[in-house]
Amino acid sequence: MDDTNSRQGRGFTLWFTGLSGAGKTTISEIVERELREKFGKVVVLDGDIVRTNLSKGLTFSREDRDTNVLRIGFVADLLTRNGVGVIVSAISPFKEARDQVRHQIGDDFIEIFVDAPLEVCADRDVKGLYKKAFSGEIAQFTGVSDPYETPAAPELHIHTDQEEPQESARRVVERLEELGYLSRVAEYNRA
Amino acid sequence: MDDTNSRQGRGFTLWFTGLSGAGKTTISEIVERELREKFGKVVVLDGDIVRTNLSKGLTFSREDRDTNVLRIGFVADLLTRNGVGVIVSAISPFKEARDQVRHQIGDDFIEIFVDAPLEVCADRDVKGLYKKAFSGEIAQFTGVSDPYETPAAPELHIHTDQEEPQESARRVVERLEELGYLSRVAEYNRA
Repeated sequence: MDDTNSRQGRGFTLWFTGLSGAGKTTISEIVERELREKFGKVVVLDGDIVRTNLSKGLTFSREDRDTNVLRIGFVADLLTRNGVGVIVSAISPFKEARDQVRHQIGDDFIEIFVDAPLEVCADRDVKGLYKKAFSGEIAQFTGVSDPYETPAAPELHIHTDQEEPQESARRVVERLEELGYLSRVAEYNRA
Repeated sequence: MDDTNSRQGRGFTLWFTGLSGAGKTTISEIVERELREKFGKVVVLDGDIVRTNLSKGLTFSREDRDTNVLRIGFVADLLTRNGVGVIVSAISPFKEARDQVRHQIGDDFIEIFVDAPLEVCADRDVKGLYKKAFSGEIAQFTGVSDPYETPAAPELHIHTDQEEPQESARRVVERLEELGYLSRVAEYNRA
């Protein structure tokens, strides 16, 4: 990274995708704290916030899941274009909808595939949802009774069964630095 | 307005409320052009954009109308808090939902009551909707078969049957200047 990099002052969307329990929220929360110091303007759109404020009433059908992802994308795009660093944490299981958001946001869309084997996610079972999914109490559960389409070319691929959340978060922030989004702050520090 | 005013660099939400045909969109489009020059970061959330991107599937029941208004408010608040000038143009007929958004956004919420007698709006009938509302072809039409609750204390009350859109838009921008949101630009010009 050097000063010729031209993304200073631009917003971005960090889009964390992956199975429930893969570690999206854990990592994104660490990243959020770092970015509040290093970047300033940060907005977090995680699954719960979005289901409450934008997507109440939507089901887990493919169509409604896609609608949910596109709504998050619409809001993330507005913020990104206005210089905000957006952190999205959403299972977002379907490639087509994710790619539609990527197309909308353009270069400032940074897809982070938070990856762990299904068995690892199910063992963690942070919210007790896998138990209910395997017993059939919850239907259309991604990875169990509903598909998850893995990203073909994410900007970052994180294996959370092989490294600690702190380490994963560090790699996300480093990627933002490499891409030049944080260099403005670096210059401030130098001055 | 003087330099002691402390809203420089802050975002705001201009919330245009009023009957269909009152002139919300006409005025807000003029204001948008002015603000793109004077303020820079501007986002327009008008009824159609929102119905497509955030609220597809919502009906015109009171509950769904309120949900629509609160969703717009959620997005407007995120943008406002991050220094963006937001222009909302939505009938938003119910006081309680508008006040909820006002509470969420705080001082940076600027409510503009775009007012014209029902007969004037119906005569204009820009989209041919009043004809259908009076014939019963469209149900739950604000002002005809559904209530519009007028703002008790809007920051600006515009009578579009008594002045031209250009004049109304000028008053909106002047109000923003009085409130100090545009003074940063004024200072640039002075320098």
